[in-house]
Amino acid sequence: MLKFYYAPHSCALASHIALEEAGADYEAVRLDFSANEQRQPAYIAINPKARVPALETGRGVLTETPAILTFVAQTHPAARLAPFDDPFAFAEIQAFNAYICATLHVAHAHKFRGYRWADDEASFADMRRAAPRAVGACFELIESTMFKGPWVMGETYTICDPYLFTVAQWLEADGVDPKLVPRVIDHRRRMSERPAVRRALAAEVGG
Amino acid sequence: MLKFYYAPHSCALASHIALEEAGADYEAVRLDFSANEQRQPAYIAINPKARVPALETGRGVLTETPAILTFVAQTHPAARLAPFDDPFAFAEIQAFNAYICATLHVAHAHKFRGYRWADDEASFADMRRAAPRAVGACFELIESTMFKGPWVMGETYTICDPYLFTVAQWLEADGVDPKLVPRVIDHRRRMSERPAVRRALAAEVGG
Repeated sequence: MLKFYYAPHSCALASHIALEEAGADYEAVRLDFSANEQRQPAYIAINPKARVPALETGRGVLTETPAILTFVAQTHPAARLAPFDDPFAFAEIQAFNAYICATLHVAHAHKFRGYRWADDEASFADMRRAAPRAVGACFELIESTMFKGPWVMGETYTICDPYLFTVAQWLEADGVDPKLVPRVIDHRRRMSERPAVRRALAAEVGG
Repeated sequence: MLKFYYAPHSCALASHIALEEAGADYEAVRLDFSANEQRQPAYIAINPKARVPALETGRGVLTETPAILTFVAQTHPAARLAPFDDPFAFAEIQAFNAYICATLHVAHAHKFRGYRWADDEASFADMRRAAPRAVGACFELIESTMFKGPWVMGETYTICDPYLFTVAQWLEADGVDPKLVPRVIDHRRRMSERPAVRRALAAEVGG
């Protein structure tokens, strides 16, 4: 059975939703970031990066959201979460998820984790102030050039959808005006009604 | 025919090498970053992100190194650059490339492109000073926990190898002590001897 490590309100939600969409047989393990559980030796032995998500499989541990999403999709073909037989369509999915991972999520991280890339408190404050425009520019590029609709890749729901939904959870807190990205907001609303999304959210933050 | 957009000394080198390894039929188009060519309307129409690499295909344009590497591998199966029939091994490759894209390359970018995430000159200077430790931590994690040897994923050369080689080009300039990462340095030396790597480098910076 798969073992899935997550923390509430983190990007791990995307993989959590994909596991639910796929009907995967998995156990979810919650890490308490406020107790710094991700930096304890027990977890470092599982994921030396001290981050979530991580997915323990029979072959070893996988990390990084784009990789976990791909793995869940490929090992649960009945859920049809990615077109592995169409190299262009599959690469478009990888490109979208790489953009969220390496550009949008990174812009968001500057709000709270400036210490990764700088040392002075004044720099951290500067990054916090700049986060709304950095994150906002990413969402506007998605809205205007990447999002096809009704789902990210068009008519078919894919592993891009839970990832966009996950980062869109942070949109208002990041200081982005939701009126500037109506298609992203409409997507978020429709996503929140999917049973798999409700189950993942209930497991992470409900009850 | 594929049309490949790159700039010398950028992360596009990874995809350039993969195209050479695959024996792909492609035309390479050089952008002059010093003339800001990537922000001109002609290129924005191709890639609204104003970045490289971009790969024009018969179906549309692909961006993001992990996606282009995957596409080149999947459309040139004879080159055996990724195991599409092994979901775990394929996801491990995606995880490695996502780490370079979203963590190592991002750490490197703070040396010169702090304006993406902050506004004050003092913050940019702070990020430049912190770059050696941020980039160094990434290379040390690769050296100690990710690199299997002799190639990134073990006995088989994959699309992880040109990507690691590409970011390792920047190692000394980023202030990382090469003595701390001997396996990465040895990999870089062996990579530089491959004919495909020599061809890509000659096209980008030689002659």
